[in-house]
Amino acid sequence: MSSETNADAVEESTSKCGGATETESASSSTSSDSKYGASSDETSSSDSACGASGSGSTSSSASESSCGASSDDGSTEQEVGATIEDFDAEPGQLTAVGLGPGQPEGMTERAKTALLEAEHIVGYTTYIDLIPDEITAAADELYDTPMCGEVSRTEEAIDRALAGNDVAIVGSGDPNVYALAGLALEILESKGATASMVEFDVVPGVPAAQSCAARLGAPLVNDTVSVSLSDHLVPMPEIESRLHAVASENFTITIYNPWSRKRRDNFQKCCEILLTHRDPETPVGIVHGAGREDEQVMITDLAELEDLGESEIIDMTTTIVVGIEDTYVWDDRMVTPRGYETKYDY
Amino acid sequence: MSSETNADAVEESTSKCGGATETESASSSTSSDSKYGASSDETSSSDSACGASGSGSTSSSASESSCGASSDDGSTEQEVGATIEDFDAEPGQLTAVGLGPGQPEGMTERAKTALLEAEHIVGYTTYIDLIPDEITAAADELYDTPMCGEVSRTEEAIDRALAGNDVAIVGSGDPNVYALAGLALEILESKGATASMVEFDVVPGVPAAQSCAARLGAPLVNDTVSVSLSDHLVPMPEIESRLHAVASENFTITIYNPWSRKRRDNFQKCCEILLTHRDPETPVGIVHGAGREDEQVMITDLAELEDLGESEIIDMTTTIVVGIEDTYVWDDRMVTPRGYETKYDY
Repeated sequence: MSSETNADAVEESTSKCGGATETESASSSTSSDSKYGASSDETSSSDSACGASGSGSTSSSASESSCGASSDDGSTEQEVGATIEDFDAEPGQLTAVGLGPGQPEGMTERAKTALLEAEHIVGYTTYIDLIPDEITAAADELYDTPMCGEVSRTEEAIDRALAGNDVAIVGSGDPNVYALAGLALEILESKGATASMVEFDVVPGVPAAQSCAARLGAPLVNDTVSVSLSDHLVPMPEIESRLHAVASENFTITIYNPWSRKRRDNFQKCCEILLTHRDPETPVGIVHGAGREDEQVMITDLAELEDLGESEIIDMTTTIVVGIEDTYVWDDRMVTPRGYETKYDY
Repeated sequence: MSSETNADAVEESTSKCGGATETESASSSTSSDSKYGASSDETSSSDSACGASGSGSTSSSASESSCGASSDDGSTEQEVGATIEDFDAEPGQLTAVGLGPGQPEGMTERAKTALLEAEHIVGYTTYIDLIPDEITAAADELYDTPMCGEVSRTEEAIDRALAGNDVAIVGSGDPNVYALAGLALEILESKGATASMVEFDVVPGVPAAQSCAARLGAPLVNDTVSVSLSDHLVPMPEIESRLHAVASENFTITIYNPWSRKRRDNFQKCCEILLTHRDPETPVGIVHGAGREDEQVMITDLAELEDLGESEIIDMTTTIVVGIEDTYVWDDRMVTPRGYETKYDY
């Protein structure tokens, strides 16, 4: 199970999976945004069969079975597999755990404890790979898939909890940042279960905005906003409206999921909107693969941003931090002042 | 050194300190926002003398010496004490460390390592108290103050680093969230030093928005914004403009520093603005003292929010999360859907 980023491989798999989660990547720095819509890859009933399977053997990567036939009839209905009536056991616990930027040192003590206590750990392959061996070795089972559906993995995790196992479902960053906390609750409800039934708990982690900000210096500091350019679930016109609203005010802006081959237009449009409201010389920080061996950090300005969309540093694993009018670059660091501050005199 | 919240004590000390950092509190959950402006408490040259003092003895709390005479002449000039010319030694390292919500389990492994490696640890008393004993015991010196000036403490930390010590300056949450990263860089520059000179590094932590969101369920999930109601450094009209901008779009909103005796009007105004754009039944999550023994978590709605400003649950240690139109409450948890999602059918 490679943890290399390979945008080409992700793109090619699109046709096999009926619209793959192209925003899922090998990076652990960007919280994943799952495909969840009409071009469904979740309709195969074989997905849920995994959830009802017995425990006791270590699952290997289930990449072949997790991508069902694509459904392009525009239907917005999703089939759930098992519902609460299908389980006899006393439910186990379900915990959504944020891993932070990905390296073990970025995990909180509480996250480690939650993983050590879990009997099953479920997650995207690359994130599972990043968990220290002594933690994964303590689990009874690991369930990981390389792509195609945060939805099916989350459903798998829930089914295993309903079947009586204590389950931890992991993601990078924080579970409340373009991530799995909301999805888990929605799927629980759809199955006729409750969050209380599985003592659903969320273990927070360091989001990509703050991990990347730390690499850039002090770019955030004051009021700030996060915007995702992924328009799978939110129409681009709405994203544009949000960008206009915050770009016209003094918010530093962290852009998640800035670019993919299919979403070049979104990135270009975003750059245009930012330039409508902010000076072309506004500092912009770009962090690619934060915490990984191939990490790249660049500080540039708004005028240069659009062209960089076609360079290696900007892809789906990149986080972009846009400064405000008062942000400046000093000693290779982005600095956003805390307000209408005083200057020191000496 | 008490770690109890005592809003009254903080307010009373205002007159002694020439405008205390009233937003600093005993809570470790809310990233502190420091006073930094005309009503200066930083003008005493005795502050900087501490920085040039030798190492070797453990410093106790320096509450008496860190609050200088108040200066209410409206001057916006601040005196720095020592500048780079005052130091002969090879500078040590300066690291800004985010502690997360405050309890040791909320710290990242990297934060712990950074603190263990530091010779001096500097911070607000309550945060220092929350660091595990085995970590503080490993430091040569601790420098903590109960109130009156993130500015003087940060300057102290920098002076000690310039004097040759490896220094960690700590704060709750993340150093880029209404916190010390930007201030540290600004003060370094004012002293004629550089960030590189002290190998300035930022260790990220879990921000209050995500710590509190975890206690509420899945209230954030998608595009989100953080706004502070503290108007020490940003005029209230600008804060109002920002609130209007984001409340009129589908951003979940995390409100930091929502209330203090002096800022009741700000809180009321914020509630009015929110109600201008959002339904009175919009779910709102309130977390007071996250992670502390007296933690309180409440889910209410926008219509009830203003009156709660006069209750115990809302004070300077509180973080408020405002949902969007689609946010709902289910099984005592706030859930914000990830977009125009599909419903499961079974």
